[in-house]
Amino acid sequence: MTARPYNFSAGPAAMPAEVLEIAAGEMLDWHGTGMSVMEMSHRGKAFGEIIARAEADLRSLLAIPAQFKVLFMQGGGLGENAIVPLNLSRGGAVDFVISGSWSQKSHKEAGRYAQARVAASNADTKHTTLPAPASWAIGGDAQYVHLCSNETIHGVEFHELPDLKALGSDAPLVIDFSSHVASRPVDWSRVGLAFGGAQKNLGPAGLTLVVVREDLLGHALPICPSAFNYQTVADNGSMYNTPPTYAIYLAGLTFQWLQRQGGIAEMERRNIAKAALLYDFIDRSAFYENRVAPEARSRMNIPFFLQDESRNEAFLAGAQARGLLQLKGHKSVGGMRASLYNAMPIEGVRALVDYMQQFEKEMA
Amino acid sequence: MTARPYNFSAGPAAMPAEVLEIAAGEMLDWHGTGMSVMEMSHRGKAFGEIIARAEADLRSLLAIPAQFKVLFMQGGGLGENAIVPLNLSRGGAVDFVISGSWSQKSHKEAGRYAQARVAASNADTKHTTLPAPASWAIGGDAQYVHLCSNETIHGVEFHELPDLKALGSDAPLVIDFSSHVASRPVDWSRVGLAFGGAQKNLGPAGLTLVVVREDLLGHALPICPSAFNYQTVADNGSMYNTPPTYAIYLAGLTFQWLQRQGGIAEMERRNIAKAALLYDFIDRSAFYENRVAPEARSRMNIPFFLQDESRNEAFLAGAQARGLLQLKGHKSVGGMRASLYNAMPIEGVRALVDYMQQFEKEMA
Repeated sequence: MTARPYNFSAGPAAMPAEVLEIAAGEMLDWHGTGMSVMEMSHRGKAFGEIIARAEADLRSLLAIPAQFKVLFMQGGGLGENAIVPLNLSRGGAVDFVISGSWSQKSHKEAGRYAQARVAASNADTKHTTLPAPASWAIGGDAQYVHLCSNETIHGVEFHELPDLKALGSDAPLVIDFSSHVASRPVDWSRVGLAFGGAQKNLGPAGLTLVVVREDLLGHALPICPSAFNYQTVADNGSMYNTPPTYAIYLAGLTFQWLQRQGGIAEMERRNIAKAALLYDFIDRSAFYENRVAPEARSRMNIPFFLQDESRNEAFLAGAQARGLLQLKGHKSVGGMRASLYNAMPIEGVRALVDYMQQFEKEMA
Repeated sequence: MTARPYNFSAGPAAMPAEVLEIAAGEMLDWHGTGMSVMEMSHRGKAFGEIIARAEADLRSLLAIPAQFKVLFMQGGGLGENAIVPLNLSRGGAVDFVISGSWSQKSHKEAGRYAQARVAASNADTKHTTLPAPASWAIGGDAQYVHLCSNETIHGVEFHELPDLKALGSDAPLVIDFSSHVASRPVDWSRVGLAFGGAQKNLGPAGLTLVVVREDLLGHALPICPSAFNYQTVADNGSMYNTPPTYAIYLAGLTFQWLQRQGGIAEMERRNIAKAALLYDFIDRSAFYENRVAPEARSRMNIPFFLQDESRNEAFLAGAQARGLLQLKGHKSVGGMRASLYNAMPIEGVRALVDYMQQFEKEMA
């Protein structure tokens, strides 16, 4: 395999090269069937095996308990912003923890279907801190509590899921784990529903993962589209409508790759090391800056700034020339952002740090 | 290229081998970017070129007029069954032409959002005829008229779109053209909105094409999810949420392949010849039977039956052994079904007819 550039995109994001090579090799003929996976009927035996193995592998990797359903859906995180309240709000009240752009969007969209309240917010620190759970104002009538457990744009991550029971609430916790799913274990005892677009850590865009506790099914509003009714999707094994078959296949290959790496515990170990390498460098530097409170910093998405922002274009051009791709920050935050998902090896982070050091020297 | 089996799947369906070969070759590095298309930010320059060219090529192929928006969405035809009335019904009345399973499903789902009426139905002939437009009961208050212009399961196709104006109605016509899009020209002067899942004639599952006249935008119900609001999708160039980037890329490669074949007029010529070959053989046979009225027969989906259905399993096993794949009929109709989408060459239809002849002889 020839060396590939290091791709720091926030999503759609780098995939393991091994996964892409397998997919390329099987493109015209999956396992002697004479068909590409994308040419198979979703109701046929071959695709049945592919989706069943993908689900089993994901359940094993993430230790998903039997009382949770795994749904493969479409529409992404922004779709789920409507689909979750359509299924879970019962038209009542819902409490949101605002920790950045994504939870803000979720809160706004839920207002179409439910009384969407703000239980806590870090807006006063420009989304650079974690609102402490003890301070959350959760209503006794909350149908669920929504939390974005990793904010891709602001680079804020909850390193422990809140224990709502210990906070005196019986409401189920809904987490948007799009941008850190499979980067660390999930404490399912604290979760009612988790959703995520695949395009950061699981596979290509166009696939949405929903993991939902069975007792939360069956309460959709009558206006919920059938294709997005969790009960309907679950009853039909994610095949009420034609699923995004090729995306599921690629996610399945990614799950197999994760197993070969040693599973989620090993990925977490690597992700801790990768993030520490970059944060430690930035923190020691007077040239670069990360503005997120240390305890709130994401392992996956690391926004940083050049103290002199007039050098941004030069920084990005030099990075591109070295094969360090897609480092430009989100337009709403500015600066740079390095996303260090599972497919990013520590060598890529080292190459980035080396470049940042050299760029600083050149500018001195 | 080694010979591939002939894949008669109704969808997800056969793709042109040339498209799959290009995709395999570009899997790890699209045009020297060092990235797979599925690893690119949807906001970046490279993917921007891919989606812009895909739209331009599709507009050119289908001769889509400028006053129509082309939207790349998710959720498939069953998703659109809710999304269309959420966007177009204004909560009023909608008239449905029932011609088979898909229009029935569309009618049922629309009832969640609108007064969904039946303007005509071919249920009395078990969905084997076309309800004549002159007989349709279209209300003066209809917000739109829904027609499935090709019924994938029952094998019924409208070979001319109705002229609603000539029928005295000002309502826009909505067509579900999932299973014959790009197989023939579209008379856009008679259409307000057309939608289709990509997985029959355009690309892989997980991409939904919507072509909508601009004046129909902006009337969504307040309960319409933002990610499925046509105005929002149009205003954001199909990037309100992360689009299914790799599926769009594959559809774009398919559009380029269609251009190389000679465009839609040439595909129609081939599709007429392919369908005639199979129907003529079946009609001359006393062993096989197609039950659809000749004027209503689909060029794309040809359901047929063995007069002696006890031989179904033997027929399918023999076909599979000869590399004639996925011929089993839909469970609701039974028997066999051969789908002859654009990617099926006439050689595949000849091979099928040859096998059918030989099977008949062997059974004699």
